[in-house]
Amino acid sequence: MKIKERIAKLRQLMETERIQAYLVPSTDPHQSEYPPEFWKRSQYISGFTGSAGDVAITMDQGGLWTDGRYFLQAESQLKGTGLDLFKMQTPDVPKLEEWLAEKLAGGGVLGVDPRVLSVEAFSDLKKALEDKGASVKTIDRNLVDEIWEQRPSPSDAPLEVLPVEITGQSTEQKLKCIREKMAKKDCSCHVLCSLDAIAWTFNMRGKDIDYNPVFISYALITTDKAILFIDPEKATESVRKHLDDLAEIRPYEEISDCLKLEAEKGAKFWIDPKATNKWLMLPLEGKAKVHKERSPVADLKSVKNDTELKGFSTCMATDGVAMVRFLKWLEESVPEGGVTEISAADKLESFRRQGEGFAGLSFPTIAGYAEHGAIIHYQATPETDVPLKPRGLLLVDSGAQYRTGTTDITRTVALGNPTAEQREMFTRVLKGHIGIATLKFPKGTSGRQLELAARKPLWDIGKNYNHGTGHGVGHYLNVHEGPMAISSREPGVPLQAGNVLSNEPGFYKTGEYGIRIENLVVVEKQEELSTEDLEFLSFDTITLCPIDTTLVATELLTDEEKEWLDDYHRQVCDRLSPLLDEEHRIWLECKSRPLRSFRSV
Amino acid sequence: MKIKERIAKLRQLMETERIQAYLVPSTDPHQSEYPPEFWKRSQYISGFTGSAGDVAITMDQGGLWTDGRYFLQAESQLKGTGLDLFKMQTPDVPKLEEWLAEKLAGGGVLGVDPRVLSVEAFSDLKKALEDKGASVKTIDRNLVDEIWEQRPSPSDAPLEVLPVEITGQSTEQKLKCIREKMAKKDCSCHVLCSLDAIAWTFNMRGKDIDYNPVFISYALITTDKAILFIDPEKATESVRKHLDDLAEIRPYEEISDCLKLEAEKGAKFWIDPKATNKWLMLPLEGKAKVHKERSPVADLKSVKNDTELKGFSTCMATDGVAMVRFLKWLEESVPEGGVTEISAADKLESFRRQGEGFAGLSFPTIAGYAEHGAIIHYQATPETDVPLKPRGLLLVDSGAQYRTGTTDITRTVALGNPTAEQREMFTRVLKGHIGIATLKFPKGTSGRQLELAARKPLWDIGKNYNHGTGHGVGHYLNVHEGPMAISSREPGVPLQAGNVLSNEPGFYKTGEYGIRIENLVVVEKQEELSTEDLEFLSFDTITLCPIDTTLVATELLTDEEKEWLDDYHRQVCDRLSPLLDEEHRIWLECKSRPLRSFRSV
Repeated sequence: MKIKERIAKLRQLMETERIQAYLVPSTDPHQSEYPPEFWKRSQYISGFTGSAGDVAITMDQGGLWTDGRYFLQAESQLKGTGLDLFKMQTPDVPKLEEWLAEKLAGGGVLGVDPRVLSVEAFSDLKKALEDKGASVKTIDRNLVDEIWEQRPSPSDAPLEVLPVEITGQSTEQKLKCIREKMAKKDCSCHVLCSLDAIAWTFNMRGKDIDYNPVFISYALITTDKAILFIDPEKATESVRKHLDDLAEIRPYEEISDCLKLEAEKGAKFWIDPKATNKWLMLPLEGKAKVHKERSPVADLKSVKNDTELKGFSTCMATDGVAMVRFLKWLEESVPEGGVTEISAADKLESFRRQGEGFAGLSFPTIAGYAEHGAIIHYQATPETDVPLKPRGLLLVDSGAQYRTGTTDITRTVALGNPTAEQREMFTRVLKGHIGIATLKFPKGTSGRQLELAARKPLWDIGKNYNHGTGHGVGHYLNVHEGPMAISSREPGVPLQAGNVLSNEPGFYKTGEYGIRIENLVVVEKQEELSTEDLEFLSFDTITLCPIDTTLVATELLTDEEKEWLDDYHRQVCDRLSPLLDEEHRIWLECKSRPLRSFRSV
Repeated sequence: MKIKERIAKLRQLMETERIQAYLVPSTDPHQSEYPPEFWKRSQYISGFTGSAGDVAITMDQGGLWTDGRYFLQAESQLKGTGLDLFKMQTPDVPKLEEWLAEKLAGGGVLGVDPRVLSVEAFSDLKKALEDKGASVKTIDRNLVDEIWEQRPSPSDAPLEVLPVEITGQSTEQKLKCIREKMAKKDCSCHVLCSLDAIAWTFNMRGKDIDYNPVFISYALITTDKAILFIDPEKATESVRKHLDDLAEIRPYEEISDCLKLEAEKGAKFWIDPKATNKWLMLPLEGKAKVHKERSPVADLKSVKNDTELKGFSTCMATDGVAMVRFLKWLEESVPEGGVTEISAADKLESFRRQGEGFAGLSFPTIAGYAEHGAIIHYQATPETDVPLKPRGLLLVDSGAQYRTGTTDITRTVALGNPTAEQREMFTRVLKGHIGIATLKFPKGTSGRQLELAARKPLWDIGKNYNHGTGHGVGHYLNVHEGPMAISSREPGVPLQAGNVLSNEPGFYKTGEYGIRIENLVVVEKQEELSTEDLEFLSFDTITLCPIDTTLVATELLTDEEKEWLDDYHRQVCDRLSPLLDEEHRIWLECKSRPLRSFRSV
């Protein structure tokens, strides 16, 4: 069935429902970054395969809203569909809600599936429409599903139960902490909709979603019970035994009835308006007391315990070995020819697969050669793939899931002799990276207050980069997690000892090259500076992999920065050498030579 | 009448009104930082004279909420009043709204004068109370006024009309800009409640409030008319002529009726919820469309035009001359004895009075000697005043209103030989000051992203300071103005070319000394770095006064920092020398010697 036919069929359903527009967001009921195939409704209705693209359909028009990463791809994929492309963040291009409000002004009705809008997104949309005299109607089924032929099925992959040796904290202890937080807000019921929050709470992992080791579920935590709502098929003997008397298991869709029941009993609900879908609010509205705030699980989960941090340390070494083998292979293979962006990414994955506890990639590998490196979210396809030649820069951003933790690392390497400009820009990015890595800051400081350290070396010469400097990283969970971040858009969440974040400044020259240097760091107490009155924190860098010193313009580094780089390389050697064969050990030692010895060359 | 009697009389009125609690905030109907005497109701009812102290009275209890600056003063002034002191930001001390919600839980009623709560503050208070089953009742008169014997009268000082030679923009032009902003939000009516916003819009100044050259008023701007609500006595011939056909004049209290009328006509109102008092909302609620957002005047006012900037440059020289005369006098007089904190502040004021266009101080001078310097908002009283001796540090934070602009400057000087620790700490504060002064940053950056530059030299050794780094400064207006600031609590307002801000890092060692170095800076376009795609901004330092180099540990400064200080001193000399007599010129040249020559000494 062609896209046009799909849209025509959808319009028939819209007529039956007496709505003048229908919204098909690209997210799923759990605000997943990577929705599973069977929930990719915006892709089915539009044909656009990018990861972010919301679709709105009226009786005679339709549009797709996506960001700068996907303008070219969307233009090509929307051809012949009758859908218009709306380039987000472009002057004079209306926002989705503005366009809808305009089309429906004066009495029009927008239909939405309340499962695929967060409580906050729904309320913003409603406000925008009502301002123009239009309204929103929730429809308790997804109209795209009804016309979807050969719709993929949900995954039937079994759940994995994690022992406390990996998680460091039992579900019983976690529920106790959550309930303590609930009690402080006088709440008797907390609804969990984020899949990583549920996986963390119940110490289980799944394979229902690409890259994120989570499983499709809801959860309800009350003062005296916990209920996990999942596909009953997945409630195997080991799962039941693990949850034992800690949590009941009920079918996925039954959460709505349960919420209704709790509301009738007079419960006060804690709802995270950004992370909870609107459908879950429907049984509560006007019937129950609701406290709206970020879920306490987000904060608890972001503070890694000692067992989790030990796990991170282990998987960093495993991942570092794979990276060293990859970088050595790359150095030797590129001059021989035949290596492409895709084959390099595949090779890296094959090295990672050999690592202990490997459980998949943590996101699609970005291997961007030369000008492709300047496309921040580049993913090579057979159409864009290019051979790597012994010149220019290669940017590789990659990571994996291990049972002991999650990795995320970017290295930029020179495949030949870099230019003076490339060396200067790499060195400025490195200065920014070291600026973050060496910061000391008082407790209470949030990531947005720190970002200047990463950007200043670039701002000094009128350059910048268009992405955040650091995101939170889960423990054998989502590679992007909140609530903290190192970014100007971060809402002011204080960093806490135990947070794991990325440190990834970059520089991108369109049409020429991209540079990014990314390590993970752990926030820890800075013992020497801390006093009784004022606790100081600092970052400990945990990623283990050499940084390409042929790209470093040593004369631009201060003595302290040179010392940091030499110390870092010594640490990488010390940790990885025992895990490498002689050939790789020698290679690593050569790559990790202190800058001092370079100067004497 | 004793405080206890006042409270007893208030309780009689509360009984008549059938309320169980009454709130007496310390602000006035215009959220003024310095309310005029006749609006200091919380001071009348409590006896507490500090600048921030909200009072709540129930039938059998009462309390005053104030912050760390005033704990000692409040403890002493509340003795015998029956009022409890609630120390804000102290663990386990309930917030005002929590205390009220607790006292009134389950049906109690709080009475408030809707004029002295902002729309936002009222709504937060209402929510806190309703959560506990209590409610808020607005009472359209202030109960404290009714028992206030010998209440001071409002000022009858005449208004001052400013020519366009001073303001750079006529009221006609300003109204046009405001109406353009209103049109973009589909608003036909904008209410102004902030006195500085009104003074700016109508190019007039007053003397109704200490330190802030504003006048008591409201204003209403519609698509086709403007109305200024003031005491009719103040509408002199020159005022009427100035406003001519641009704005009507009506009595102050008539705004409420006007709003009712506009609401009936179907107007859509733009209301700034933080700056507008609740009383103004009452005629609109449930009757008119209201758009809630920061007033466009705040943003327009914060971008100074060329005439205003030229005025700033002029008054900086005038103020610099006064500061130089003061510092030389201080240096010579302290060893002779007889100078105290208060007499020094008075002397400084006397020098300023001689400056052209002087129109008063811009805030009460802070002259804190030795341990008093560590009290951030210290104001010497006859009880605390101490003689200055030829040793230790003196911190002087002061400023004035000139018809050409507003000044705010802090200098810390060594009255004798400073200790090595004092020199190190002064130098780290100076490094932070220079860090801000030399920043270059892309357009779109907000002040909270920049603060790290000021704090890092202190954080590096585990120190910090408990105040923001910079606030906006008005043009012959309030010395504190928004919306931008250099502070972690700043809400993310991008800095714009033409903003005037303070740059004032500090360090305070309780019981020993305080250090602060404050200059004003103007945000300007950084021409060299700006390209078509990316505009860069930087700061131009405009305050003219030497920085005490005997407190500088030169070895802690980088070459760039030394260069900045030498350049700054050269500029101070160049600008001020022509305005000084020979004796002062020689003194200034000596104080401004480049660091290079110090090193050769």
